[in-house]
Amino acid sequence: MGANLARNLASREGNTVAILNRSPQRTEALVAEHPEAGFVPAVDYAGFAAALRRPRTAIVMVQAGAATDATIDALVEVFEPGDIIVDGGNAYFPDTIRRERAVRATGINFVGAGISGGEEGALRGPSIMPGGSDEAWRTLGPILRSIAAVAEGEPCVTHVGHDGAGHFVKMVHNGIEYADMQLIAEAYDLIRRGTGRSPAEIADVFAEWNRGELESYLIEITAEVLRQTDAATGVPLVDVILDQAGAKGTGAWTVQTALALGVPVSGIAEATFARSLSSRPEQRAAAASLPGPEATPLAADEAAFIEDVRQALYASKIVAYSQGFDEIRAGAAEHGWSIDLGAIAKIWRAGCIIRAQFLNRIAEAYAGEPGLPLLMTAPYFAEALARGQEAWRRVVVRATESGIPAPAFASSLAYYDGLRAERLPAALIQGQRDFFGAHSYRRVDRPGAFHTQWSGDRSETAL
Amino acid sequence: MGANLARNLASREGNTVAILNRSPQRTEALVAEHPEAGFVPAVDYAGFAAALRRPRTAIVMVQAGAATDATIDALVEVFEPGDIIVDGGNAYFPDTIRRERAVRATGINFVGAGISGGEEGALRGPSIMPGGSDEAWRTLGPILRSIAAVAEGEPCVTHVGHDGAGHFVKMVHNGIEYADMQLIAEAYDLIRRGTGRSPAEIADVFAEWNRGELESYLIEITAEVLRQTDAATGVPLVDVILDQAGAKGTGAWTVQTALALGVPVSGIAEATFARSLSSRPEQRAAAASLPGPEATPLAADEAAFIEDVRQALYASKIVAYSQGFDEIRAGAAEHGWSIDLGAIAKIWRAGCIIRAQFLNRIAEAYAGEPGLPLLMTAPYFAEALARGQEAWRRVVVRATESGIPAPAFASSLAYYDGLRAERLPAALIQGQRDFFGAHSYRRVDRPGAFHTQWSGDRSETAL
Repeated sequence: MGANLARNLASREGNTVAILNRSPQRTEALVAEHPEAGFVPAVDYAGFAAALRRPRTAIVMVQAGAATDATIDALVEVFEPGDIIVDGGNAYFPDTIRRERAVRATGINFVGAGISGGEEGALRGPSIMPGGSDEAWRTLGPILRSIAAVAEGEPCVTHVGHDGAGHFVKMVHNGIEYADMQLIAEAYDLIRRGTGRSPAEIADVFAEWNRGELESYLIEITAEVLRQTDAATGVPLVDVILDQAGAKGTGAWTVQTALALGVPVSGIAEATFARSLSSRPEQRAAAASLPGPEATPLAADEAAFIEDVRQALYASKIVAYSQGFDEIRAGAAEHGWSIDLGAIAKIWRAGCIIRAQFLNRIAEAYAGEPGLPLLMTAPYFAEALARGQEAWRRVVVRATESGIPAPAFASSLAYYDGLRAERLPAALIQGQRDFFGAHSYRRVDRPGAFHTQWSGDRSETAL
Repeated sequence: MGANLARNLASREGNTVAILNRSPQRTEALVAEHPEAGFVPAVDYAGFAAALRRPRTAIVMVQAGAATDATIDALVEVFEPGDIIVDGGNAYFPDTIRRERAVRATGINFVGAGISGGEEGALRGPSIMPGGSDEAWRTLGPILRSIAAVAEGEPCVTHVGHDGAGHFVKMVHNGIEYADMQLIAEAYDLIRRGTGRSPAEIADVFAEWNRGELESYLIEITAEVLRQTDAATGVPLVDVILDQAGAKGTGAWTVQTALALGVPVSGIAEATFARSLSSRPEQRAAAASLPGPEATPLAADEAAFIEDVRQALYASKIVAYSQGFDEIRAGAAEHGWSIDLGAIAKIWRAGCIIRAQFLNRIAEAYAGEPGLPLLMTAPYFAEALARGQEAWRRVVVRATESGIPAPAFASSLAYYDGLRAERLPAALIQGQRDFFGAHSYRRVDRPGAFHTQWSGDRSETAL
């Protein structure tokens, strides 16, 4: 990914790119393979620094953790105040906050920048989410704009906020990606088991969906994956892939951070847990004999069922994005970042994994009401949910009756119903907490905290 | 809670209890109020140490965090090698691991002990979950056994494991408690909105349930809370309590830790998120106009519906406990603790908030098969789930159709169906990950990792 980003940078007018790799052989090979790039090879940090015009800008693309710290330390040794060190890896945002503070003390700028798009995106134009100081952004902005993906004429990069804001937003991007992928997987499973259609036939369904409001990179590649036949066996590739999903941890970070912020991100959590459940073959084997419903009948009206699934997918997707943007809003408030949520939606429109037309609707929602308490309550999304909620219920009911697991569909619908409930049984929980732990409760009819003397005369005391 | 624990200790044959409080007035008041205890008051740490026989044992009951660290530091100054410092607060287990290591270096023993049961339990007998060294346990065991709750003749305390094991297990206890409370709250809400019964009538239902397999402290106090009438208004107390649930963070810790361990604890997560969702009045107000189903019809056969809810509650509860014990198993493996899961179930049978007959079944399951991959696959629980799964589905279907949020019921059923699925759509997720990030996949028919050249000729490469 680092090599591709370097090639992308070198291909843009006005950029001269020096490269440094732990292995001098790899540096030489890259220079030899891409003479068009005009790379300036460096063999050590001093040489790398000497090759750059001031203010120098280094983009670090190494493993998160100790390797990143070691590289930053080495650059700080050879850089000067005003120079800029960019960490383009998938760092955990508290590490970025720590590093920014430490590097800033030397007068050098440190920018944690989330970069999404994989190897292909790095070369052709990624979505870039930089944090760091305003001073660094003045130099870095034009460079990053030159290499970013372009959506409707606008480069997919913005100065997200100070210090760790960029990596925070990239983390939530990945959490949303987990939810989006799980929802697509549930939709596929429901159609497959609910209609008996083949993966190739379901590829046609996804290709069709990609021409409507679900249009997105993930829907597009789902069709590609489902259409693929395994050369060795002649069966659909998806049927020979082991059904144990891997994870690199950013989904878990997103949920852990949301828990610390008190933000319910149930869809992202269910998606993360669904992957870990899938990867426990011993437990799955032990549970294989647990019974389900007698049989899974096929849908009577296949076309109507598939349309229901499409609507359920769209509604659940709105909830997942709403939860993710809620986490960004809460994270910004907690860390003092001034994050323009609409601008975040815009820079995700191209270059990154969750790129979609849909993000224009999010940008419009925040343009219409910047202080929106929750994305899904914006008129466009509220109307979409209202239109889709009956179909969404039918799909969750069918999954439940058929014994087909749809944790993310079910969870996002329960979140929807919880949020719109006039009264929640949380009142009973407050009563229980007061009973066993004297935690007190508030009342609907007057301010203050109250406690009932549960083990005494059961009178109420105002605290 | 500290005062009650001291009174409990002093009431047992052979214990002499010295007490020290930041405020000498509070120490004096406690001594004066409880002459029967024979407390030895101390005004400073030196006096406290001088009052104790060696090996000295101090039980620290102060706020988690900085206050705990300061108290430990002061005790280390006046204690000697072989003495024991017990932290009886709700510390986060990584802090306990850190403190144990630091204190052990001085030759003094440090024991993080989870204590459950609230103020009442502290006085009459709590459930105690101590970690720390074997040496400390030799001295501490008899003291803690003397004050613990007793279940079927056995004291509710065991040496959970080394260093942070006790606080880890206490954390998961609290996470299970969150799930248990949320499930009860959902059951109440479903019966109330599904049958129109009053809180007092539903109190009768819970009192009835408390005579069967759901028998537990939480079911018992639920009946008490629902039966309570608000003196000021004459309406059921649960209807005047503000429906915004509070939390002290141990539920969030449980889920965060599970995410780090890769253990799916979806029921605990949904319970934690349900509390945070309830506490966001601005978002709930914005979402209040989102539509649900046309109307919520009452159940045609009330008794059958209530019995279905009972079975759904029992099945979901089994899942919640299974997920919690799975987290303890994974935590023990990660941290090198030798934890007897059956012994944990036994010490939760009395004294603590989740105390229940049910825990005997868990102890039996682990006695029958100590290496059980997952609690819910033990014969007793597998049979209970098999018996209840149809009712469980009917309840989730009804909640979904009626627009009544039941996130924990729905999530635990989706977990059940995911675990027993022969094939999961995780295979599609692996295909997507290989497509956009070259993350590779495994195959069902041969070992190794594979990658399809998605942007090339779509041939497959063995890695």
